[in-house]
Amino acid sequence: MRPHSLSRSAPSTVHANTITSSLLSVATGGAGFTDITREVAKFLREAGAREGAVTLFIRHTSASLTIQENADPSVLQDLTTALNRLAPENAGWVHDTEGADDMPAHIKTMLTSVSLQIPVLNGEMALGTWQGIYVAEHRARPHRREIVLQFIGSVAP
Amino acid sequence: MRPHSLSRSAPSTVHANTITSSLLSVATGGAGFTDITREVAKFLREAGAREGAVTLFIRHTSASLTIQENADPSVLQDLTTALNRLAPENAGWVHDTEGADDMPAHIKTMLTSVSLQIPVLNGEMALGTWQGIYVAEHRARPHRREIVLQFIGSVAP
Amino acid sequence: MRPHSLSRSAPSTVHANTITSSLLSVATGGAGFTDITREVAKFLREAGAREGAVTLFIRHTSASLTIQENADPSVLQDLTTALNRLAPENAGWVHDTEGADDMPAHIKTMLTSVSLQIPVLNGEMALGTWQGIYVAEHRARPHRREIVLQFIGSVAP
Repeated sequence: MRPHSLSRSAPSTVHANTITSSLLSVATGGAGFTDITREVAKFLREAGAREGAVTLFIRHTSASLTIQENADPSVLQDLTTALNRLAPENAGWVHDTEGADDMPAHIKTMLTSVSLQIPVLNGEMALGTWQGIYVAEHRARPHRREIVLQFIGSVAP
Repeated sequence: MRPHSLSRSAPSTVHANTITSSLLSVATGGAGFTDITREVAKFLREAGAREGAVTLFIRHTSASLTIQENADPSVLQDLTTALNRLAPENAGWVHDTEGADDMPAHIKTMLTSVSLQIPVLNGEMALGTWQGIYVAEHRARPHRREIVLQFIGSVAP
Repeated sequence: MRPHSLSRSAPSTVHANTITSSLLSVATGGAGFTDITREVAKFLREAGAREGAVTLFIRHTSASLTIQENADPSVLQDLTTALNRLAPENAGWVHDTEGADDMPAHIKTMLTSVSLQIPVLNGEMALGTWQGIYVAEHRARPHRREIVLQFIGSVAP
């Protein structure tokens, strides 16, 4: 534990009871990251979202979600390297009938995220300046991946 | 970043303001995975859930949650191996008064999930075909673990 | 899969349609963990929260969130060691213009959590006895970090 200071803005409250859902389908180009930030923002605009939160849920066990730096593409390259080091191929896995990249893909999915929740304030996701939302494909070959998008909150009248 | 294509279904909206909570208690058999998918589905049926999301939250720091392949049990065996490699016992940890498996259990919990959120569409969790919800016990001996289940959304009249 | 038994409490339901948001700013002291549990509890009291869930979202890609043991500070020390081993400095990363600690910080963020959701029951977070909520600073030097707090649920009249 380190010395620290805290500050917090006054809470703001709205009344809200709308849930809007949509299914996003992403064709990945094989192992690597696909930025879906704009598509989620577009979904929120279409839903008329004002205040609330958007949930992302990926319906797979060999691809996952992560929020990461969107400025320098070499960050994504290094993240791929890091995952390959943490979950290498041909490392004595028992489950190997679906190819050498399959069990590492499950491990990488476990170490990252299957669901994300992002607050929506005044119609915009409360992302930081450098945050992008990515689908991480962990299989070597291209796949079609499904992500459920769901907004809970208030909508424009 | 790779080439990719995107498609998305039209958003569907419901009005919803119900929150239903329940506490699930799971007796684990020591290190390994326990499938709780059916129990969560049963909770949603009892709650009369229609559209919304179910949150799972585990109240522990040496057991965690993950969504993983439910078809081949050897995947779960390999996930255990992978976690043991990422967080080995007797690796010079300072915190060792509760047994050699305790600090690795905390690390494994940090690398996986304490909370999950799964969209519920038309009364069913939007899980992919091969996705099961698991409690991951990271201590060597059996433990009783508590998971809060909470549905937010619309219910059948 | 191990033998196990399950039990579950009867679902309890409330009607709720309030969303309350606030921005928490935390000055970290450099690499390490800052406990924000009390500050989140204070936010919930100010919001008059009764039943629902609180979402935490950190607006950064080199700091993250985790729920961990709050009893023995040596656990946090070992978690730092574990993250340093999983994402070492000077390990051949391509992205190195922002300092040797920068790319490891992105990897540590990917392996932990950017968003957390904690159920709120009867006005209190449903945390386990030993669970504390932490901001994990992954950069060597102190930083100011922003966390969005958002409660969805019912409030006291």
